[in-house]
Amino acid sequence: MCRFLAYHGEPILIETLVASPTHSLIKQSQHAAEGKTETNGDGFGVGWYGERAEPGLYRELRPAWSDENLWSICAQVRSKLFFAHVRAATGTATTRANCHPFTLGRFMFMHNGQVGGYRAIRRRIEALVPDDLYLSRTGTTDTEAIFLAAAGRGLADDPVAAMSATLRLVLAEMRRAGVTAALRFTAALTDGTAIWAFRWSSDAFPPTLYYRQGACGVIVVSEPIDDEPEGWRAVPAGHALVAAHGRPAELRPMELEVALAA
Amino acid sequence: MCRFLAYHGEPILIETLVASPTHSLIKQSQHAAEGKTETNGDGFGVGWYGERAEPGLYRELRPAWSDENLWSICAQVRSKLFFAHVRAATGTATTRANCHPFTLGRFMFMHNGQVGGYRAIRRRIEALVPDDLYLSRTGTTDTEAIFLAAAGRGLADDPVAAMSATLRLVLAEMRRAGVTAALRFTAALTDGTAIWAFRWSSDAFPPTLYYRQGACGVIVVSEPIDDEPEGWRAVPAGHALVAAHGRPAELRPMELEVALAA
Amino acid sequence: MCRFLAYHGEPILIETLVASPTHSLIKQSQHAAEGKTETNGDGFGVGWYGERAEPGLYRELRPAWSDENLWSICAQVRSKLFFAHVRAATGTATTRANCHPFTLGRFMFMHNGQVGGYRAIRRRIEALVPDDLYLSRTGTTDTEAIFLAAAGRGLADDPVAAMSATLRLVLAEMRRAGVTAALRFTAALTDGTAIWAFRWSSDAFPPTLYYRQGACGVIVVSEPIDDEPEGWRAVPAGHALVAAHGRPAELRPMELEVALAA
Amino acid sequence: MCRFLAYHGEPILIETLVASPTHSLIKQSQHAAEGKTETNGDGFGVGWYGERAEPGLYRELRPAWSDENLWSICAQVRSKLFFAHVRAATGTATTRANCHPFTLGRFMFMHNGQVGGYRAIRRRIEALVPDDLYLSRTGTTDTEAIFLAAAGRGLADDPVAAMSATLRLVLAEMRRAGVTAALRFTAALTDGTAIWAFRWSSDAFPPTLYYRQGACGVIVVSEPIDDEPEGWRAVPAGHALVAAHGRPAELRPMELEVALAA
Repeated sequence: MCRFLAYHGEPILIETLVASPTHSLIKQSQHAAEGKTETNGDGFGVGWYGERAEPGLYRELRPAWSDENLWSICAQVRSKLFFAHVRAATGTATTRANCHPFTLGRFMFMHNGQVGGYRAIRRRIEALVPDDLYLSRTGTTDTEAIFLAAAGRGLADDPVAAMSATLRLVLAEMRRAGVTAALRFTAALTDGTAIWAFRWSSDAFPPTLYYRQGACGVIVVSEPIDDEPEGWRAVPAGHALVAAHGRPAELRPMELEVALAA
Repeated sequence: MCRFLAYHGEPILIETLVASPTHSLIKQSQHAAEGKTETNGDGFGVGWYGERAEPGLYRELRPAWSDENLWSICAQVRSKLFFAHVRAATGTATTRANCHPFTLGRFMFMHNGQVGGYRAIRRRIEALVPDDLYLSRTGTTDTEAIFLAAAGRGLADDPVAAMSATLRLVLAEMRRAGVTAALRFTAALTDGTAIWAFRWSSDAFPPTLYYRQGACGVIVVSEPIDDEPEGWRAVPAGHALVAAHGRPAELRPMELEVALAA
Repeated sequence: MCRFLAYHGEPILIETLVASPTHSLIKQSQHAAEGKTETNGDGFGVGWYGERAEPGLYRELRPAWSDENLWSICAQVRSKLFFAHVRAATGTATTRANCHPFTLGRFMFMHNGQVGGYRAIRRRIEALVPDDLYLSRTGTTDTEAIFLAAAGRGLADDPVAAMSATLRLVLAEMRRAGVTAALRFTAALTDGTAIWAFRWSSDAFPPTLYYRQGACGVIVVSEPIDDEPEGWRAVPAGHALVAAHGRPAELRPMELEVALAA
Repeated sequence: MCRFLAYHGEPILIETLVASPTHSLIKQSQHAAEGKTETNGDGFGVGWYGERAEPGLYRELRPAWSDENLWSICAQVRSKLFFAHVRAATGTATTRANCHPFTLGRFMFMHNGQVGGYRAIRRRIEALVPDDLYLSRTGTTDTEAIFLAAAGRGLADDPVAAMSATLRLVLAEMRRAGVTAALRFTAALTDGTAIWAFRWSSDAFPPTLYYRQGACGVIVVSEPIDDEPEGWRAVPAGHALVAAHGRPAELRPMELEVALAA
């Protein structure tokens, strides 16, 4: 299990959310409160939109808490839309290529969760990636494979439908392989203009996911970064949150049957 | 293009061949003489047989010339059979998982060369890897894919036949995809008891490969590590060298048709 | 605070103590039980005696738990005397040069503790290092400075006296600078033939230090690596343990006045 | 010997000078033309002024040519004043802390050259650093020590005088120690508003240093980044260049006697 944060709003320094708060994402890399693992020390990444349609990206395999470059980038980069992620590996190697967020053109994606039985069905999940996107597969994570698979299923047209369709295929592969472990999925996707955040699980234990919207912007987090609990609302399980600065956040059901190993 | 060295013989410190000679492999990481690239600074690896049937392995993404750990390991590990490799990347990322040698059980493999058009046919080359070995695919190189593909085609029974059969399949995929760039292949394989070294190219430019056999053992190199040219013999193009300590080295033709884009 | 382990005895694979036990040092890198910090993820090191009078050394700035090279080295290197250390940094950078153990010729040293007010008196502590050893100062830790300072005060003749004399000088510098924070010191030193382990604190809270001696050898640890509590004895505070395979371990008082900020 | 680049002018993407040109600094990391070493693969750094008085900083110990993060940062960060440096180590370790540029508050500094006999006189050079700046000493290079020493001698008031005074002290230490090897010094300093570039040598072989000033800004380089030789002017040996956007560049003699080992 990992921890992540997404922001869209008035341009702010990344550190405002990632480094400065009481329970910032960098602090969560050492002491997460609501995750399965307290330590998220298997690499990290930060991606931001600024000068181009494509996001900038800094990923590194060291723990976030001791990386001087991360602190400097957070202190210097001002952005209206950024993602940050600290990783707790669940079976794949600690490499830059396995660190979130992942990017593809103007899209960016990050994830906290698990594909049950992934080691047994990795090849089948990879087979969901279209040929023309396969070269963008540079690591071995389930997250990157799901992102590329969804990119071939209409992310640009309807992200919620594309992601739901992809998860349906993943669930089918899990069923075919007789996997009984759950698919748990909290994730955030962006194209540089809005954030789609997903919370879904094939069992009763979806990872936590919260959001807060104010005049300055909207924040999506694995767990709150400060002590204002009234300000944070949980994304309901089984839903996608469509969030953009200046528009009220919207919740949509993901319409995924939950018949994993029935 | 990369540089490598393989040794089988009386147990010696790895540094004897990898660090100490006039033109040692570590020196070749900065100043190779016969390769396409003078600098081989995109990671390195050393693997050795000692306490177990499986080899020990130290791979790192930094250049070999500045890695203190490599110097220490070379100075302390004594082995009767070891491989060492310095990498010049040709399109894939600089990660540990892309550094040679690769291991699978008691087998170890390393390579210098290129699969023409690899970026376009990577997925097809990966499809040659059997299902039960696919989890061992942790990087994105052509070398690792070819190694795992060959491992599913009888490496334990007849390494020369298994490797030739695999290259034949790779050539077929290159043809199918209309690739006109060459397949150039120098490589070394071991199971811990002997070394099989391969030199083959679909064009007239196979990378260099040399060997030297003496009372103490046999050495296979991309380029000589010292100035005794009479001692080094070239492996003839199109041949596999079967080398083991205490037996005369043997040359076998690889029997690969060369009709790439005819 | 860090965690460490030292062994002298019949040659064994390093993994026997560092990777395999229920509560091995690698497990302690993620979940230490008795330290101030549960996570010791700011680099690690392993040093061993084998082929030479000088130890081999593998240090890396990544967390121990995810380092494939560490697992391989532990599985392949057999040694009669080795040190291993996982680091929780206390103010200095996460670099290889700041990872323990430190070596100097045939000596090797590692530490868990703190020099109170170190940031303010670092230069004075470094001034204790003799000129001819100063080039060996490659990092910025208190540990390395104390080791080099002790090396100039007779480590080869009487390690307990040399270390006590060095700590006395460190305490004097702390006093001069008006430091009130404690000097807490647990450490292990070896010359390749015996282990000297130290436990001392200027306040009532010396870090834990245990040892176990059996027919096969002697082990010194920051905290036990298995559940046999009767087998582990605490090194009494204020004492040095002199431990070598085949000789009964011996305890000596360190004779350090404790008048820090009186 | 290293290679570096400094820019002050209209805000531009860093890649415009560091990654895109025919002979960009990243290309120079693999194939420098005028340096003593063709390969500058021992780490790199880029520092830029943007949101704060203090510069942002990204330094890494890998070669520049293969670092994905560097490419991304260069493509996304727009700045009116930035430094970039690729390193060829001359005796000190390949660590982030030894990578240029170095920063101190709003100052930034980088260097290409050598302090003859540095290993023998490192301690004396470090002694030139004032007490209150000593904690900022995190690596072991001559460059960082000279920068901190100069910072204690009036960098904010008169950078040319402060640097000249510091080099005079360094030369005195070299003389005292009987060093006959040369002091060669090309360097760039900035406070975020102007660039001071230095070219001086105690022998007849000062490293190269060029500059070009146009309507958009001023560039200082170890060697030209493109083929417009008429555009590049050499900084004369023994001089400091004071360069700022919108003001004509000015040359000042450094007034350093050259009586090293007379």
